[in-house]
Amino acid sequence: MKVRVTVSLKEGVLDPQGKAIGHALHVLDFPEVREVRVGKVIELDLDEADAARAQERAIEMAKGLLANQVIEDFRTEIVQ
Amino acid sequence: MKVRVTVSLKEGVLDPQGKAIGHALHVLDFPEVREVRVGKVIELDLDEADAARAQERAIEMAKGLLANQVIEDFRTEIVQ
Repeated sequence: MKVRVTVSLKEGVLDPQGKAIGHALHVLDFPEVREVRVGKVIELDLDEADAARAQERAIEMAKGLLANQVIEDFRTEIVQ
Repeated sequence: MKVRVTVSLKEGVLDPQGKAIGHALHVLDFPEVREVRVGKVIELDLDEADAARAQERAIEMAKGLLANQVIEDFRTEIVQ
C-alpha cells in the first residue's frame, strides 16, 4: 500500500524558500505570481494491505518524524 | 487561482533523503516501511482567473525553474 504524506508550513509561518521562488519567477517574467509556498511530499511504500491501517500508521510516522507540528501541517492520502 | 506543482524524482534516480527517512522510520519501530521517496510541492497563487491558462503558466514555470527535468518529473493541478 502506498501512502502520500504532504507536509506544508502552517498559515502565517514565514516561508523564505517560497519567497525566493516567487522573486525568481517575477524575474523570469511571470508577473502574475502573487504568493508561493513550498512543502514536502513523502511517498511511503508500506508492507500493509489494509488501507485504513496503512493510513493510521502513516499519521503516526508524520507525527513522530515527518512533520514538525509546531510549524507544519500534514495530510495523508492512499495512493494505491 | 491556485495551482499546485508536485515535483518528484524520476524512477531510478537515487533519493538519499528518502533512504535516510526510511532508515529513521525503521529505527522508530515502523518495520513495514519498504521504500520512501521525497519530493516537493509548490503552491502557486496566481493572479489569473482562467483555470486552463493558470495551469499552462504553471507548467511553463515548472519547466523553467521549479523542476529539473533531467532527474525530476512534475505534475500540476488546480487547487481552487
